[in-house]
Amino acid sequence: MINQNIASPLQVQKSHGVSQWQKIAPKFEAVVGKKGVVQRQEELLTYECDSLTSYRQRPALVVLPRTTEQVAEVVKICYENQIPWVTRGAGTGLSGGALPVEDCVLIVTTLMNKILKVDLENQRIIVQAGVINNWVTQAISGKGFYYAPDPSSQTVCTIGGNIAENAGGIHCLKYGVTTNHVLGLKLVIPDGSVVDVGGIISEMPGYDLTGLFIGSEGTLGIATEITLRIIKTPEAIGTVLADFTTIEAAGDTVTHIISAGIIPAAMELMDGTTIKAIEDVINTGCYPRDAEAVLLIEVDGLAVEVESSKQQVAKICQQNGARNVIIASDEQRRIKLWQGRKTALIALGYQSHYFLQDGVIPRTQLVAVLKEISALGNQYGYRIANALHAGDGNLHPVILYDHSVPGAFKQVEELSGEILKLCVRVGGSISGEHGIGADKKCLMPEMFNHIDLDTMQWPRLAFNPQGLANPGKMFPTPPTCGEAAQAQKMGRFSDLEVF
Amino acid sequence: MINQNIASPLQVQKSHGVSQWQKIAPKFEAVVGKKGVVQRQEELLTYECDSLTSYRQRPALVVLPRTTEQVAEVVKICYENQIPWVTRGAGTGLSGGALPVEDCVLIVTTLMNKILKVDLENQRIIVQAGVINNWVTQAISGKGFYYAPDPSSQTVCTIGGNIAENAGGIHCLKYGVTTNHVLGLKLVIPDGSVVDVGGIISEMPGYDLTGLFIGSEGTLGIATEITLRIIKTPEAIGTVLADFTTIEAAGDTVTHIISAGIIPAAMELMDGTTIKAIEDVINTGCYPRDAEAVLLIEVDGLAVEVESSKQQVAKICQQNGARNVIIASDEQRRIKLWQGRKTALIALGYQSHYFLQDGVIPRTQLVAVLKEISALGNQYGYRIANALHAGDGNLHPVILYDHSVPGAFKQVEELSGEILKLCVRVGGSISGEHGIGADKKCLMPEMFNHIDLDTMQWPRLAFNPQGLANPGKMFPTPPTCGEAAQAQKMGRFSDLEVF
Repeated sequence: MINQNIASPLQVQKSHGVSQWQKIAPKFEAVVGKKGVVQRQEELLTYECDSLTSYRQRPALVVLPRTTEQVAEVVKICYENQIPWVTRGAGTGLSGGALPVEDCVLIVTTLMNKILKVDLENQRIIVQAGVINNWVTQAISGKGFYYAPDPSSQTVCTIGGNIAENAGGIHCLKYGVTTNHVLGLKLVIPDGSVVDVGGIISEMPGYDLTGLFIGSEGTLGIATEITLRIIKTPEAIGTVLADFTTIEAAGDTVTHIISAGIIPAAMELMDGTTIKAIEDVINTGCYPRDAEAVLLIEVDGLAVEVESSKQQVAKICQQNGARNVIIASDEQRRIKLWQGRKTALIALGYQSHYFLQDGVIPRTQLVAVLKEISALGNQYGYRIANALHAGDGNLHPVILYDHSVPGAFKQVEELSGEILKLCVRVGGSISGEHGIGADKKCLMPEMFNHIDLDTMQWPRLAFNPQGLANPGKMFPTPPTCGEAAQAQKMGRFSDLEVF
Repeated sequence: MINQNIASPLQVQKSHGVSQWQKIAPKFEAVVGKKGVVQRQEELLTYECDSLTSYRQRPALVVLPRTTEQVAEVVKICYENQIPWVTRGAGTGLSGGALPVEDCVLIVTTLMNKILKVDLENQRIIVQAGVINNWVTQAISGKGFYYAPDPSSQTVCTIGGNIAENAGGIHCLKYGVTTNHVLGLKLVIPDGSVVDVGGIISEMPGYDLTGLFIGSEGTLGIATEITLRIIKTPEAIGTVLADFTTIEAAGDTVTHIISAGIIPAAMELMDGTTIKAIEDVINTGCYPRDAEAVLLIEVDGLAVEVESSKQQVAKICQQNGARNVIIASDEQRRIKLWQGRKTALIALGYQSHYFLQDGVIPRTQLVAVLKEISALGNQYGYRIANALHAGDGNLHPVILYDHSVPGAFKQVEELSGEILKLCVRVGGSISGEHGIGADKKCLMPEMFNHIDLDTMQWPRLAFNPQGLANPGKMFPTPPTCGEAAQAQKMGRFSDLEVF
């Protein structure tokens, strides 16, 4: 099968002329109806980019299916006509994973918005790909359950997009990321076949194709129906805010809390620049303007456990030099403490253009890396704010700059790349929860050698042998970006340039 | 690459004569030394089977490497000489995953027994594949950490074997199975290349090849070095034993404990037949002989949480009709309560031959399925004991029979198959933690249709195109076992018969 289907680069037609699209569009209309196909240039503008707005490419056509069967038919038409296609949910992705490619069909899942089955007894819910993350919790919260992964965009982003990028969130320190909450997937693979992987129980026999698919950024197919694990709403939640005069003290506190055997649901660190922006713009009154760091720590579970843990957390904060420690006494106070963290980017964006980055480091390297990031900022002449998931070492440096200054964005991109290389040098990663997409593919060789990257191509060649599904994402093209000559020397997978 | 390397069935030489093995053995000796190669027939006897003793096949040669480099060299020799090979750890697997095939090299990892790195601060440990599961915890327990997955064979089984079968254990209800505790793998893939997948941090970019490899039963390569997550030893453990006069009452108790938002570390159910065997043979004095079911429930965490949870668990047991509820007051009492569960198979085996099965059902189906299993036993004329991980619906029916009766084993195998089909009918699985191996591959089509099974072949064809790594395991050969004609109709993957 595989050897028959691997297309040579020439088989992928790079361009379909306008007349060709006029011929093909009715085929899609026959599947999803006239209203399900977007062709007018001004309407296509909306789909030019996802939330990584620095990359733009208009798709040739947008198709909005409503069912798995329609997705399968749409993909089949693409397969038969050798048309590249890209899947998009709400377009909140920050790495350009849903960025169209030239002459592609963009398959948008927003009309696939049905919750198909709620099974509270077995703690499962089955949803279509376009269901908004937050809707899942809304559908079950009255019954005492919720869906754990909570990316910042959770009121807008889709479960399908969460799966493509293996989305994380503030509470993934304790609860894990998307892959820890998905049991089964109905997939449409690039030849238009419908495949079921995983199921409703936790561990299924055979290869873990569910896990392989999650985080594959649309390059292996489209998940159309998704079985999620839902969990009991905790009996109690405790939230603690502590401020520090040094980053070191905050970093030490993080280490000591983990060492004490406490696994907070969330443990967020904000630095001085972020704090000032929050208080200048939002004015929460909770975050002292002169602090060099605040820690926002949340524990959840049984009431007795939460009561004990939040006192212990407060004590550890004090022992490590916290000036003020606030324990939220009620839900209103809790929301108030979170307000700052949740509006941090809005506050920073109000004051300046910014470029948000996403990297991971081993938690023990936190203080050293934050210092080095600050030094890199000074070297390039930019201020960098930091609001990070400290518990799992997931950094979110925010480079502040003026977009109107010629050349500034290019410099910021370079600085941003240096920060990610630093993450890799200390044993971390170029992406925590935003994905690789179009943005970071050239940095993949910083983390993986040729053999490791070649091996990763195997699933793609198997599932997506003609390279029609989300081409040009995730992996460098050619393998080391800008080192075309090297690709030829590799021998192995030299035909990958097609992707 | 892939299309070049897919061998036609004829390329796999089915037989190497004795003289051929005499020629090839020195090549392996050159890599691992004379002592690292076992050739004498009487020594090879040891390696004829794993713990599924009903299947036996002597390997042509056993090789015992000590390092990743040696494994890579050994696999390369196999690759160059088209010799099939099977990997084996301690041979405790219950599904024949480490069963040799005719004329194969058996690569045994027991000399790869080094703990390579302990990183307590980041809660990681790096071990060689042959390290015993229990050694990991022993190496760090003094420092307040442990390794969570705890299969029954944990004092003997290897981490490499745990990865091949994605081993579970008594405490996987709360802590998950092996795949939830592995961060990175150094792999030798079937062409002898060394590949690093995953890393030391939780979520790495690119496809999740770590997850794909875990549970792949040796068909994609050999994991030689493994990065594990270690966790803090809980501050307190609470253990509760309750006995019931009906299975229904025990089943209801399980449901109510989960509904109360408690996630026990373990929740084990034993039925009347098991209880009687335990008390007749081991005489713990804890399990009432006339009970129809006992539940053994363990909670862990912070001391305050455990104190609260165990009281709540005891109360729920009583509310659901438990006759006696014992809460272990100290570690000695706790060990005593566990003694029965831990010796259940020994006790049953002392009284009768048995065939142990492993299946999964949705937890809500527990009582109905146990009743139907009992009815199936009556229909076939065999008693069936049950000791199961009730919290996650992982059944372990134990069919009691007399091996000396001609035809009995065949009947038991058939009955056992019926039980697994029942698991699938209610939405469960033919394997919870023992794997598919040689034993259950013919049942895979009960769970997966042709397209799903075909899709699972893709990673195998990609990693193991010549089918040299653990041939004949995990997947039916031909696809629907005994339906060779059907395989030809499929068109797709018709060359899979080689595996």
